[in-house]
Amino acid sequence: MPKISQKGLNMPSSPIRKLVPYAESAKERGLHVYHLNIGQPDIESPVAMRQAAKHIDIPVIAYSHSAGNISYRRKLVEYYHKVGIEINVDEILVTVGGSEGILFAFNSCLDPGDEIIIPEPYYANYNGFANMSGVVVKPIISTIDTGFALPSIEDFEKVITPKTKAIMICNPNNPTGYLYSKEEIMKLAEIVKKYDLFLFADEVYREFCYDGAEHFSVMQLTDIAENVVLLDSVSKRYSACGIRVGALITHNKEVYSTAMKFAQARLSPPLYGQILGEVAVDTPQEYFDDVVAEYENRRNTIVEGVNSIPGCFVPMPKGAFYCVARLPIDDSDKFCRWLLQEFSYNGATVMFAPATGFYSAENIKQGANEVRISYCLNVEDLKKSVECLREALKVYPGRTL
Amino acid sequence: MPKISQKGLNMPSSPIRKLVPYAESAKERGLHVYHLNIGQPDIESPVAMRQAAKHIDIPVIAYSHSAGNISYRRKLVEYYHKVGIEINVDEILVTVGGSEGILFAFNSCLDPGDEIIIPEPYYANYNGFANMSGVVVKPIISTIDTGFALPSIEDFEKVITPKTKAIMICNPNNPTGYLYSKEEIMKLAEIVKKYDLFLFADEVYREFCYDGAEHFSVMQLTDIAENVVLLDSVSKRYSACGIRVGALITHNKEVYSTAMKFAQARLSPPLYGQILGEVAVDTPQEYFDDVVAEYENRRNTIVEGVNSIPGCFVPMPKGAFYCVARLPIDDSDKFCRWLLQEFSYNGATVMFAPATGFYSAENIKQGANEVRISYCLNVEDLKKSVECLREALKVYPGRTL
Repeated sequence: MPKISQKGLNMPSSPIRKLVPYAESAKERGLHVYHLNIGQPDIESPVAMRQAAKHIDIPVIAYSHSAGNISYRRKLVEYYHKVGIEINVDEILVTVGGSEGILFAFNSCLDPGDEIIIPEPYYANYNGFANMSGVVVKPIISTIDTGFALPSIEDFEKVITPKTKAIMICNPNNPTGYLYSKEEIMKLAEIVKKYDLFLFADEVYREFCYDGAEHFSVMQLTDIAENVVLLDSVSKRYSACGIRVGALITHNKEVYSTAMKFAQARLSPPLYGQILGEVAVDTPQEYFDDVVAEYENRRNTIVEGVNSIPGCFVPMPKGAFYCVARLPIDDSDKFCRWLLQEFSYNGATVMFAPATGFYSAENIKQGANEVRISYCLNVEDLKKSVECLREALKVYPGRTL
Repeated sequence: MPKISQKGLNMPSSPIRKLVPYAESAKERGLHVYHLNIGQPDIESPVAMRQAAKHIDIPVIAYSHSAGNISYRRKLVEYYHKVGIEINVDEILVTVGGSEGILFAFNSCLDPGDEIIIPEPYYANYNGFANMSGVVVKPIISTIDTGFALPSIEDFEKVITPKTKAIMICNPNNPTGYLYSKEEIMKLAEIVKKYDLFLFADEVYREFCYDGAEHFSVMQLTDIAENVVLLDSVSKRYSACGIRVGALITHNKEVYSTAMKFAQARLSPPLYGQILGEVAVDTPQEYFDDVVAEYENRRNTIVEGVNSIPGCFVPMPKGAFYCVARLPIDDSDKFCRWLLQEFSYNGATVMFAPATGFYSAENIKQGANEVRISYCLNVEDLKKSVECLREALKVYPGRTL
């Protein structure tokens, strides 16, 4: 029997999926599981977007353009203009979710062995895309004590080598919920310019900014326009993760035409998703206002709730729908398994993503007493989840308080 | 300005897209262009499949399972059973088109520098996927004089090295239309077994077999079940290239679980496409009977037509909707450009894909007097295309007859 590849062996498992068998054991125990582990929004997708599928009648469901339907890209130009990003149709490459955009960016800009700096904790699947393309992630720690703010310029410079080709951020951030300020983005621009690096920004949570905070996009850095690649997705924006439509956006023509070669090899992005995405651009502002108000409420519920538990600390994040909490525990992997296997309170338990999955192998210990909390549940369930956590921390054998 | 990657520079452009600007020049000359260059079927997708979109009402368009919806995979088990392939739901990984399946297979089974043997001419995008994953394609020539039959065992053995990890075939073949016989597949199995290689088979044209010929799938090679990875797609089967739904199928649990790690990194395949794909499995046999009769007619029109032109030769293919024709010309790239830029007949011209794009760099000369003809047009247009070609070959300055 032939052997699988080393690349396959090295491919990380999703830190979220690792717990799935344990969640099943909780269900076998008859418990309700509060899923604070995944970023699957429960918010309804916009009605007009969903209705759009009913009006599709295409006799031949043909390939779309490799860069995405021109009508969809035109509509995206409108969308980006509304959020303060000026681009044209030839600078948008529609991808299969944000995921494909990341892979295209890595493959177009970095060779195997090249290094990319990413503040950690970071979205775990970046490791998978790095492994696929042979790229080496150089993490630099952002700490819970600063609320996961951007590390200092000095911290970036410490890890820059001749092999460094790019910096990547996720803003607002998954897993921390941190929203980088305009000042922080300008600081990044300085480093990028000084060392002539690419700046990749995953801004799929752009719409989810709280307390009236404004999102400042890397696309607004006109001074380093040629260095910037924006990675985007409609998944979270319209609560429509299933349509698999994202985008790679750049003013850099060489990067764009290179990414197009990768796009042509896979022929085209999904047609139905693009049609729905096109309709979604006209989603009224009230939809977002409602959604943001709801998430802000949820965030407050979680952050205030968890902070009221002795020994727990969560910084108040300004974006996305995640936060990272420090808990008085020995080992977040063990704790999360224990919650599912051993614990129950009022017929329920709660599922978190151990933060270890969001740190690099060398800094995995940073995540040992942290969990990522995704607040994609209604406020009542979030309150019950907090009570579960409070009770769990009273009896968990590995508690450190 | 930072430099793009060497991998990006090495990424081949699609041989079909290269001619697009020339096609535009033909349209500017007011000509009708017969598109015999692309495999975009003009056949209507099954009605029930198209109607399915009208009945979708999902409040939250959520991620599906990374391996694909379980209901869809159950339905696929039925489909494969109907075509003589026995598999279960845990052996099917739904992919974003056949393309993603190829990339998952390469990444799961081969490391950078590992070699894969592919009879050429072969589907040009295999080069792109090989470049993305760092895999080295070792081509072996199948010739037009044998109708592009499988090369001999000796030809395979000549290129086998310690780095050889896999053999890949496309059956029925794009670009040649050749349908490998059961005997040829058994021969392949022998080599695969002897050298303990993976056997990847792209069988996306399974339904398109002519003259009553039966398709023999690599999944029917029970003796080497652990070596076989099937790459499939619904694109051609239901004339539904736009939904981007394919599958990677294998009995090898290690390959499957490795491919799943790649699948989890990109979260999920497109939801709408899967829903349509599920309905499509119940497409009545008459749909395929009609489609196959139509393509058989088209094939006969093209093959007989082209063979009636002095100096031209096309072997009669038994599958897919392509054939490769040898023409009395100096250079197929030049000829195809000339057709679009200089030639016209009765207000029209014809577009082919130069066969050079389907050969490896080292054997590119093999394609210099060959073109790939895709017969995705109605019989009347095909007849007119043949007449265009006949007239063109009378006046083309680089004709060799």
